[in-house]
Amino acid sequence: MPETKILASYIVDNQYDRLPEDVVAEARRAILNYVGCALGGCDEPAVDIAIKTLRPFFGPPAAGVIGRAESMDPLHAALMNGISSHVHDYDDTTPGNYSHPTSPVASALFAYAAANRVAGRDFMHAFVLGFEAESRVANAVYPAHYDAGWHMTGTAGVFGAAAAIGRLRGLSVQEMTWALGLAATQAAGLREMFGSMAKAFHPGRSAQNGYAAALLAEQQFTAGERGIEGPRGFAPVTARQYDLAKITTGLGVDFDLRVNTYKPFPCGIVNHPTIDGCIQLHHEHRLTDGAIDAVRLSVAPLVLDLCNQQNITRGLQGKFSVYHGAAVGLVRGKAGLREYSDEAVNDSEVKRVRERVTAIGDPSLSEDQARIEVQLTDGRTVSTFIRESLGNLKRPMTNAQLEAKFRDQAAARLSPSALGRLIELCWSIDRLEDVGEVVRASVDGITATAAATR
Amino acid sequence: MPETKILASYIVDNQYDRLPEDVVAEARRAILNYVGCALGGCDEPAVDIAIKTLRPFFGPPAAGVIGRAESMDPLHAALMNGISSHVHDYDDTTPGNYSHPTSPVASALFAYAAANRVAGRDFMHAFVLGFEAESRVANAVYPAHYDAGWHMTGTAGVFGAAAAIGRLRGLSVQEMTWALGLAATQAAGLREMFGSMAKAFHPGRSAQNGYAAALLAEQQFTAGERGIEGPRGFAPVTARQYDLAKITTGLGVDFDLRVNTYKPFPCGIVNHPTIDGCIQLHHEHRLTDGAIDAVRLSVAPLVLDLCNQQNITRGLQGKFSVYHGAAVGLVRGKAGLREYSDEAVNDSEVKRVRERVTAIGDPSLSEDQARIEVQLTDGRTVSTFIRESLGNLKRPMTNAQLEAKFRDQAAARLSPSALGRLIELCWSIDRLEDVGEVVRASVDGITATAAATR
Repeated sequence: MPETKILASYIVDNQYDRLPEDVVAEARRAILNYVGCALGGCDEPAVDIAIKTLRPFFGPPAAGVIGRAESMDPLHAALMNGISSHVHDYDDTTPGNYSHPTSPVASALFAYAAANRVAGRDFMHAFVLGFEAESRVANAVYPAHYDAGWHMTGTAGVFGAAAAIGRLRGLSVQEMTWALGLAATQAAGLREMFGSMAKAFHPGRSAQNGYAAALLAEQQFTAGERGIEGPRGFAPVTARQYDLAKITTGLGVDFDLRVNTYKPFPCGIVNHPTIDGCIQLHHEHRLTDGAIDAVRLSVAPLVLDLCNQQNITRGLQGKFSVYHGAAVGLVRGKAGLREYSDEAVNDSEVKRVRERVTAIGDPSLSEDQARIEVQLTDGRTVSTFIRESLGNLKRPMTNAQLEAKFRDQAAARLSPSALGRLIELCWSIDRLEDVGEVVRASVDGITATAAATR
Repeated sequence: MPETKILASYIVDNQYDRLPEDVVAEARRAILNYVGCALGGCDEPAVDIAIKTLRPFFGPPAAGVIGRAESMDPLHAALMNGISSHVHDYDDTTPGNYSHPTSPVASALFAYAAANRVAGRDFMHAFVLGFEAESRVANAVYPAHYDAGWHMTGTAGVFGAAAAIGRLRGLSVQEMTWALGLAATQAAGLREMFGSMAKAFHPGRSAQNGYAAALLAEQQFTAGERGIEGPRGFAPVTARQYDLAKITTGLGVDFDLRVNTYKPFPCGIVNHPTIDGCIQLHHEHRLTDGAIDAVRLSVAPLVLDLCNQQNITRGLQGKFSVYHGAAVGLVRGKAGLREYSDEAVNDSEVKRVRERVTAIGDPSLSEDQARIEVQLTDGRTVSTFIRESLGNLKRPMTNAQLEAKFRDQAAARLSPSALGRLIELCWSIDRLEDVGEVVRASVDGITATAAATR
């Protein structure tokens, strides 16, 4: 049987009761992380502009957007959720295929659930299957597809959204095959857009387009039946080499949610071990302003290829500066969204320490490792070695750390009680009677300050 | 200067008065042909399904769709116009790059003009520039891009729509550069969809997405600045070989509207010389039912590779049958949309003649040529040789033939007076005060019969 149809059959026929409990648990973590990222990004200019520009085209206001006061039709809500949740590059990653898998799938699902009553169990099931479909398509074409210049989160994402919404709508195998075909023929997103707002547009558009693909297929809008593997299909057209067995092998047994990772810090992942170590040193030695005299880093050479900016003035530059990461870790003991603001980059103590950091590339270190040595003004030297970076598969973020990340992103927008309630809703998402509650809770609790800045 | 910016500057800075008159005249022909195709396709199931499915998401009904009673937001109207105008595969073609260039550009422009007052001169200017931008991007990546499996009409079309709407909106060079970047990162459409409704979805989606790209860029939604030529941009990512000089050479001097062609018959282009000759024989010899005993065709071998179906029962199959093309030409003296209906394929006289056609591949014939010999029941044999196929660049359809094609497509929908008025509006489009009149005239005149079948 052709791969597109095998995948379609799996999505259609899969039974919720057969999902392994560890996969469901990981899905809850992915969703909690996603909702936090969407809240953290929802008032960024990219989202404001998209809403302002497309407002004249919004359909009836059936769906809320995570963290936003506006309502709109669910297709546009899917777009906005996608932009919000990816705009800080803080959402999850599957290291095996370099995609950010949750955003396209969850952005469509939350938009759907905001406008239609969806039980938590059905939502969870659609999410797991959409995530899996997307990640398997990505695995099949990785690395040639990524190396060519495609942004996986856009190109594979549309399959995930189509699969998830198609499953919620109860598509037949024939309809799901068309939905995947309509996804294939809308797959888009170029890495040339990195560094611009268009990057975050990718998961948004793929959520929106995958959602529409499922609805069209349900109404018998036909598509090619071999959208993925056909001679002019997604895989041959977008990858010089591909392996279709990665779509079909181990379906129902292997789940890519098990190899999903969460970023502890909103910046280039190669800086993470340095930041991690610096935060540890801050807390362990109770470092205060003025305590640091000099910082010496040994990092994988790639870090200096990618993140060697030291003389910076803007928050966005901080994301590509291992020096800044070290400085905020040591000075503030954290590296959340606020540590990558213009304010933080120009803070006098952060700046002072950043300028006293030196870094050398050490080929014996992996990209998950860093050695940090801090010379204190009291004459002592303290140091640490990070063997595995926080957030990677060998040292995953704990649930408590994911919650702390969520709080850091949402604190400016939600009152403490609203924030606590939303976290609780995310952890229990598969038991909710109506998942739309999550979207409403993300908005109901907006603090007066956040609402006033709109 | 990078190619994307050169193209953006050209689109922004071009002056209407410098457009050559022959280019403007050809643009009028392209638009007349387009509006006819949109009318011919507007009540096809693909359009009905798209409207029915997406209706819950329509924004305020600001824009009409060519030939349809419904109103919707202009982005959705662009989508519907695109599906209508391409669904019969009867729209124009630039043989140099295999794209159907007018649909994505005009579908966006007519949707825009239906919702906003646009003067004919501005519409015409935006159309010429959008067509040119699209065709140049296509030329740059052809043939590697097409051979890989991309449907040019989708992938290049989105650039054309973005350029055209961006020009109407008066974007700056910076904004137009972003608009082209947002187009590049939405470029999609696989040839694997051929034979399904998704093929016609391509120009529709590219019209809609290019339109949105222009509006987003206008509001400072940023994109990569080198969307076409950057190392991870459209050209390197989607074509193994490409020639960026084709985007920039001869801007303002060479216009691809001059190499645009129009299909005289709604079927595979390789059948056209046969049909053309058979229609000529029908009229010349006043052939009536029962007059034909046998038909012998000599055609380019490719014709038999592609269109060798003789035992057929459905209209769609007729499009891929050189035997059916010969039969309707000889029996009915025409080959319009109605000759590719199920009714025509099953008509007893058409069927009788079709079954008496034999065809041989003759490598000495080009794909623009055909030799036809008809044995009549009265004992005579009549024959003809077609040296250049009607509709190709050496034997373009005349304005009168384009009008006849328009009438054939629109006759079932519009009263004769409404039809005549619409043709007049198309010929004078660049002198209209408000191009929205064309869209309204395409709907106002819907016959009671056509409206009742909705």
